[in-house]
Amino acid sequence: MTDYLESAPRMRLGTFLGVPQATSASAGQIAVIGLPFDCGTHATRIGSRQGPAAFRAMSSEVRPFYPPLADVDPRAGGRVVDLGDVDVVASDLGPSLAAMEAAIHEVVKADAVPLCVGGDGTVTLPVLRALAKRYPELVLIHIDAHTDAYPGEDVNTGTTFTRAAQEGLIDTRRSFHIGARGTMLVAGAYDHTRALGYRLIPGEEVRKRGPEAIAAEVREVVGTRPVHLSFDMDYFDPSAAPGVATPTWGGPPVAEVFDLLHGLKGLDLVGVDINTLSPPHDVQGMSAMLAGHVAVIALHLIQLGQAEHRLNAGHR
Amino acid sequence: MTDYLESAPRMRLGTFLGVPQATSASAGQIAVIGLPFDCGTHATRIGSRQGPAAFRAMSSEVRPFYPPLADVDPRAGGRVVDLGDVDVVASDLGPSLAAMEAAIHEVVKADAVPLCVGGDGTVTLPVLRALAKRYPELVLIHIDAHTDAYPGEDVNTGTTFTRAAQEGLIDTRRSFHIGARGTMLVAGAYDHTRALGYRLIPGEEVRKRGPEAIAAEVREVVGTRPVHLSFDMDYFDPSAAPGVATPTWGGPPVAEVFDLLHGLKGLDLVGVDINTLSPPHDVQGMSAMLAGHVAVIALHLIQLGQAEHRLNAGHR
Amino acid sequence: MTDYLESAPRMRLGTFLGVPQATSASAGQIAVIGLPFDCGTHATRIGSRQGPAAFRAMSSEVRPFYPPLADVDPRAGGRVVDLGDVDVVASDLGPSLAAMEAAIHEVVKADAVPLCVGGDGTVTLPVLRALAKRYPELVLIHIDAHTDAYPGEDVNTGTTFTRAAQEGLIDTRRSFHIGARGTMLVAGAYDHTRALGYRLIPGEEVRKRGPEAIAAEVREVVGTRPVHLSFDMDYFDPSAAPGVATPTWGGPPVAEVFDLLHGLKGLDLVGVDINTLSPPHDVQGMSAMLAGHVAVIALHLIQLGQAEHRLNAGHR
Amino acid sequence: MTDYLESAPRMRLGTFLGVPQATSASAGQIAVIGLPFDCGTHATRIGSRQGPAAFRAMSSEVRPFYPPLADVDPRAGGRVVDLGDVDVVASDLGPSLAAMEAAIHEVVKADAVPLCVGGDGTVTLPVLRALAKRYPELVLIHIDAHTDAYPGEDVNTGTTFTRAAQEGLIDTRRSFHIGARGTMLVAGAYDHTRALGYRLIPGEEVRKRGPEAIAAEVREVVGTRPVHLSFDMDYFDPSAAPGVATPTWGGPPVAEVFDLLHGLKGLDLVGVDINTLSPPHDVQGMSAMLAGHVAVIALHLIQLGQAEHRLNAGHR
Amino acid sequence: MTDYLESAPRMRLGTFLGVPQATSASAGQIAVIGLPFDCGTHATRIGSRQGPAAFRAMSSEVRPFYPPLADVDPRAGGRVVDLGDVDVVASDLGPSLAAMEAAIHEVVKADAVPLCVGGDGTVTLPVLRALAKRYPELVLIHIDAHTDAYPGEDVNTGTTFTRAAQEGLIDTRRSFHIGARGTMLVAGAYDHTRALGYRLIPGEEVRKRGPEAIAAEVREVVGTRPVHLSFDMDYFDPSAAPGVATPTWGGPPVAEVFDLLHGLKGLDLVGVDINTLSPPHDVQGMSAMLAGHVAVIALHLIQLGQAEHRLNAGHR
Amino acid sequence: MTDYLESAPRMRLGTFLGVPQATSASAGQIAVIGLPFDCGTHATRIGSRQGPAAFRAMSSEVRPFYPPLADVDPRAGGRVVDLGDVDVVASDLGPSLAAMEAAIHEVVKADAVPLCVGGDGTVTLPVLRALAKRYPELVLIHIDAHTDAYPGEDVNTGTTFTRAAQEGLIDTRRSFHIGARGTMLVAGAYDHTRALGYRLIPGEEVRKRGPEAIAAEVREVVGTRPVHLSFDMDYFDPSAAPGVATPTWGGPPVAEVFDLLHGLKGLDLVGVDINTLSPPHDVQGMSAMLAGHVAVIALHLIQLGQAEHRLNAGHR
Repeated sequence: MTDYLESAPRMRLGTFLGVPQATSASAGQIAVIGLPFDCGTHATRIGSRQGPAAFRAMSSEVRPFYPPLADVDPRAGGRVVDLGDVDVVASDLGPSLAAMEAAIHEVVKADAVPLCVGGDGTVTLPVLRALAKRYPELVLIHIDAHTDAYPGEDVNTGTTFTRAAQEGLIDTRRSFHIGARGTMLVAGAYDHTRALGYRLIPGEEVRKRGPEAIAAEVREVVGTRPVHLSFDMDYFDPSAAPGVATPTWGGPPVAEVFDLLHGLKGLDLVGVDINTLSPPHDVQGMSAMLAGHVAVIALHLIQLGQAEHRLNAGHR
Repeated sequence: MTDYLESAPRMRLGTFLGVPQATSASAGQIAVIGLPFDCGTHATRIGSRQGPAAFRAMSSEVRPFYPPLADVDPRAGGRVVDLGDVDVVASDLGPSLAAMEAAIHEVVKADAVPLCVGGDGTVTLPVLRALAKRYPELVLIHIDAHTDAYPGEDVNTGTTFTRAAQEGLIDTRRSFHIGARGTMLVAGAYDHTRALGYRLIPGEEVRKRGPEAIAAEVREVVGTRPVHLSFDMDYFDPSAAPGVATPTWGGPPVAEVFDLLHGLKGLDLVGVDINTLSPPHDVQGMSAMLAGHVAVIALHLIQLGQAEHRLNAGHR
Repeated sequence: MTDYLESAPRMRLGTFLGVPQATSASAGQIAVIGLPFDCGTHATRIGSRQGPAAFRAMSSEVRPFYPPLADVDPRAGGRVVDLGDVDVVASDLGPSLAAMEAAIHEVVKADAVPLCVGGDGTVTLPVLRALAKRYPELVLIHIDAHTDAYPGEDVNTGTTFTRAAQEGLIDTRRSFHIGARGTMLVAGAYDHTRALGYRLIPGEEVRKRGPEAIAAEVREVVGTRPVHLSFDMDYFDPSAAPGVATPTWGGPPVAEVFDLLHGLKGLDLVGVDINTLSPPHDVQGMSAMLAGHVAVIALHLIQLGQAEHRLNAGHR
Repeated sequence: MTDYLESAPRMRLGTFLGVPQATSASAGQIAVIGLPFDCGTHATRIGSRQGPAAFRAMSSEVRPFYPPLADVDPRAGGRVVDLGDVDVVASDLGPSLAAMEAAIHEVVKADAVPLCVGGDGTVTLPVLRALAKRYPELVLIHIDAHTDAYPGEDVNTGTTFTRAAQEGLIDTRRSFHIGARGTMLVAGAYDHTRALGYRLIPGEEVRKRGPEAIAAEVREVVGTRPVHLSFDMDYFDPSAAPGVATPTWGGPPVAEVFDLLHGLKGLDLVGVDINTLSPPHDVQGMSAMLAGHVAVIALHLIQLGQAEHRLNAGHR
Repeated sequence: MTDYLESAPRMRLGTFLGVPQATSASAGQIAVIGLPFDCGTHATRIGSRQGPAAFRAMSSEVRPFYPPLADVDPRAGGRVVDLGDVDVVASDLGPSLAAMEAAIHEVVKADAVPLCVGGDGTVTLPVLRALAKRYPELVLIHIDAHTDAYPGEDVNTGTTFTRAAQEGLIDTRRSFHIGARGTMLVAGAYDHTRALGYRLIPGEEVRKRGPEAIAAEVREVVGTRPVHLSFDMDYFDPSAAPGVATPTWGGPPVAEVFDLLHGLKGLDLVGVDINTLSPPHDVQGMSAMLAGHVAVIALHLIQLGQAEHRLNAGHR
Repeated sequence: MTDYLESAPRMRLGTFLGVPQATSASAGQIAVIGLPFDCGTHATRIGSRQGPAAFRAMSSEVRPFYPPLADVDPRAGGRVVDLGDVDVVASDLGPSLAAMEAAIHEVVKADAVPLCVGGDGTVTLPVLRALAKRYPELVLIHIDAHTDAYPGEDVNTGTTFTRAAQEGLIDTRRSFHIGARGTMLVAGAYDHTRALGYRLIPGEEVRKRGPEAIAAEVREVVGTRPVHLSFDMDYFDPSAAPGVATPTWGGPPVAEVFDLLHGLKGLDLVGVDINTLSPPHDVQGMSAMLAGHVAVIALHLIQLGQAEHRLNAGHR
């Protein structure tokens, strides 16, 4: 405990994990960015615009070292910075998507990795648009209790990946939707997702085969391609993460969610978003704290991937 | 207690105060209508789309007889019906405003009185549009910790009454904003409200002169004109009503809010809306229950006004 | 999403899943009925009288299509109606039991299936009394952390199935108590249950054999007999469902509870009750929402059973 | 702080204010007694059976010295003991009323003063029955947002003082109901209370005349007669005490409630009950803590009355 | 609204009111500083170490313009900065007091004004120690439900102002304790406070004379001397601010607390602390939001005082 | 149910499970003792000083009979007493440790078994010091998401077992730390624990091998030696026990925690502590209730061990 305390800044502020605040990121850095937009939410439980603030606040309860992946501090050497929140306009979809895309693109152009915190599931679309400009072979791993690839012409939380497929932002044949489960508003949700070219692994299949097997399949298909990981907090069971827009009962135990994420070790993560954290529906900030744990895992995964793919050479 | 229980329907459902569900209202009736729209909220605490549901649910804790105004049951003779919620589209302002206006207009055309429950402060605009078609001399009484008459070209919770004035929906010189107080996002908020022609009585003035004096002034100015009462739940102090979008400290004790409302007795209320109830930010449903109490007062005020103005003849 | 929204009524009210309100049900329909009685609760945490209201309110977060059983809308064709709550008298057991039995019997007589929501565990008794008149071969599947078959002459939440056995309402030798676990107020609780003729499968056995094996045994024993499913919300672990009268730690993960229920597919369910939801002890309405998920499963199970047993002919 | 800590027992348990646990009380002592019965509650929010436990637990946040009345420790000399809870039977009114009456009567017989904590408003009836045997001239001061003197033959929270009047337990012409306000379930509630002989001072009158004037009137009418003070926690505004069965908006500020109670100084209090604390509907235990403050005031009022009436001689 | 949004930084972080983060302050600036120390709390409800974080987080709900004092933005011209939290050591009083004093002294030396947020009531001691070095004529205005000037040799929340008097940090004869009320742990608390030379105005006196009269007396006595304002959040009634260490019922309405503070306009405030905000005991962050409102008032009071005393010349 | 109710005392107070209050314990008895000290907590979420009170209060929801271990009442024959809380001094580590050690030692000397409830993780140190005087061969089983055996010279929650090892209180080579997992503040935490001689079984290993296998290994190593069981509530996943100081995601399902504890059957438990229950961070008292369940398991384990080791003779 001593070491950390001694090396800590004498005065602290509310960035994620106390990392330095910055206005831009440089090559190799990980840039935490808040995307406080939730007006793509047509469901009852809107409120994820408060997600980034809660995420940062509860990161006081999360620690940086993580033996299951790496017993090191991912913040070492100033490798993580916090860029604050993108200034979106509530209810005004167009300008908000543009502002988010522009902010992420600045990060991506600098060869830094954006670690985005939503906001609802629409925020993933501008992230993918920004990444796609830089990584033409981009692959998606989407972990969520819903596929968010429903039919429809709108941009909302249910059509993010319909749009992404139609805009050609990602290689859908090598992209995964993992964990769909539960009750649905429409019939044929899974079929439409597959019709767009995606690989769909429902939650039930994850339970049967186990998270390690799923992760192995993902690694096999994805290979060395650049990957964006989109993690919807409602993949957790509501007993663990009540503070989401669409709680969906029957999710895996938290430890198995971590197993699945651990299994992505070695992939070349060029972007991550954690979305749908809805603080007004949370209980004692626990879902926000859990999102922080996911973010620590992401920090380690990104850095382990960077180590691997730097050695494997300049494939980009 | 006996009487009420005996006359109650054997099976009950979740309408406001257990009144009958209906699809339309007839002359003289009061029609409860939910307006679950909140995407005019640019502030942090969005969520009033859940307002109508919470309002109906907590009405189980509110009773109909009200000695301070009338020791009678306002539901008697089927005079109150519940029309359910208007089917708005989240984040899509135009169609939502149109749908709300159309639904309210049906009620107004039938000479029934809409008792609307928001939703955020934008929902008052379609209500006024609907009423203005029927009542050219319409007057507004707006009770709120904010004037919602800020500069700007947008339709959002801050510009409802800027729009209403510019569209000529109401007689601004006889219309009141009562209760503005607290911290503000911009300078000159009060001046702009007055520049639109409105009468502004800040909360501080209410405290000094007392609610009875304020109500007397209002009655004097309004006279026999048709009135819409728009009540924002944040007029209450946050100690009483935490479940609102913009809690504003320093409000009056609840009993004095009731005094102010009681003082409107005799006015010809042709419309009422209660807005900005934000259930995800509420505590134990208490703000929703308080909104129900305001609605019971409104039921009595409307009926007392109807009794008076029916005797006073067909001024419409 | 489009389809559902388009076909939805323009105005909505607080019935379960938005189904039509009705005053009676016809053959083949499923009738949702609230039984807001909790004065059989001798334990500390009384409050399940608020269960039906919370259940309906939180059904806004549950969807109708359910791929694990059937990717169809069980409400299609008006097959589900909501009859509201039976008008019980708090603390007056006799008249309340009678009122509940009469209301359920009307439904049963019409060859509709009651889907009852409590209320505490005593509400199952009048449901069984009503069903027994119509189905002499009635079998019970009781899923609960307690057997509620304790010794005693009283009618309370602990003696419901002692009474049911002694009154001969069900075929105890083919009836199951599944899931008893945890700490107990008295010794010999399991022995007494078995002495009444019931089959008892403690929670520990469910964990060891797995829910699929248990369900297979149940299907084997029950066969084509008419079944009442009584589901106590405290079967869930308190981490998932804190809002119950007697939280009992050590329950199965939610997904395994669903597995168990899925395994009842094909049985001829002629009645269902979901009880012991105690909203004042709930957290953010999550237990109520979970009860809604159980109800959606029940809707599908009932309809799948109807399809099967209609084909198999008029065995009643 | 030192003094108290030094004189405190080395080990502490959960009695009210840490007073000694006892099984009986002796002359002049004040006996704290829990009455965990709430099945006289016909309203939605049952749960005051948990009141005594919460009351004791939150007394850790209340202190004994009270400058507005007496800057002394009322516990000094072992003058306060805690007898624990009476063992009532949930839902079984008759035996429960008998058990409560018997337990209180033991205390009263010993010339000790019962300080009872409910439980719902029915618990006042057995307290009055026990006191009436000892004090034929008993007078009631009932402070409550409701008169609980409604018509009806039942024993429930709404008829306690109808029963008390009809059984002749108190001198109704010198007994007060102070503070009725708000919405009502039936018409004529005030008239019926007065028809029973009671003095009724509605909350509105308290607001206009002020608590000091009301207290003066009470002292004038009551004189040296033995008094039972029944305090319903819903007399507080729900902003202060949400944890009650029937929250009733428009109550006085807490400081004015204290003023009213302080004004009872000098009366000969022979019994006190504080009822209707409903912990499952409370927020952070604040209503329970407030009940503890009322109890400290009661301790001082009782002892100040004892001092006065001991000097004034053996009027009993 | 437009102006503010346009001038806002494109990306935001969690400082108080979004002001710039800084590591030091310059002359005339106001420096927000968190003092997350709470181990001077001997009472049950420890937790104010989480105060600064909650204070900053909830400042998203507070606005800068404040018509009752000044319709200007106090942040204009970079006049407010946020220095983050002092790095204290939990449970180690000595080093923590030293670290806080050193950090504040740096600010004071630079002729900036510290606006400190606790932490419990012990944090005021190091603030006074730092200020006393710079302002030999320092006067204290302490607004609190307790005097915190109890006997004892310890440094804890109850002896802060005993220590301050004995160390000669302030001119006690011109220093005020305003608002003591409620139940107490020891006898003679008020006498000891006065024996130290302080002026004591109990809460009861504030209620009778009114906040304006009290403020006038304070201004009269204090004159042009440099003032430290220490504001304990428990001065608010617990109905408004439950999230404190020692909730004390019977406080003034929030509007009257603001009146008292407004009355300090014109004083030369050289330091402010807001303490005893205990987030784990708060409800929906409302107490933290209220602390933010007090801080906005303080920002305006400081700047109005600076304007006045700069004109009145270089008395320092 | 009848039996228990009939044999219950007529009046009850807030001891654990309603056992008798006592001031000392005799041979063979189990003595419940509260250790309300939390100033060894350097993390954000202090508050476990409120643990013992919440633990006792929520024991109303836990029952004594426990079929998985023994279908008997462990309270029978007065074998369990509640000694209340040790009177510690907040923030003053030295005297508090001494007071706790002295109180426990009295119990141990009398050949009773202390069942201690914290308080934070520092309270285990005085318990071990007291036990070590009586049991030179003492062995520790520490079940916790952290090893609390970090480097450092301080006494705080992170160094309890570093101190215990260095003071030679326990046989570290036969002592276990079970369940460490999650994110960490420093590197090398596991190595340091092992360097002190302890056996470390990380949570991941428990998941892989299963709780039965782990328990078997423990029994094998420990044999007939006297054992202290220290159970940190954060071993549970935060979805089950949010009310702890350092919630650590990824814990086992509650049922598997019970399996692990059941596996300790037969060991000679001479002391137990349950620590780190932090009520202000709890949700609806559920973590406190879960601690009560652990305590019931402990009561049975202790008595089963006593039965076994009394038969096996006087090895002490």
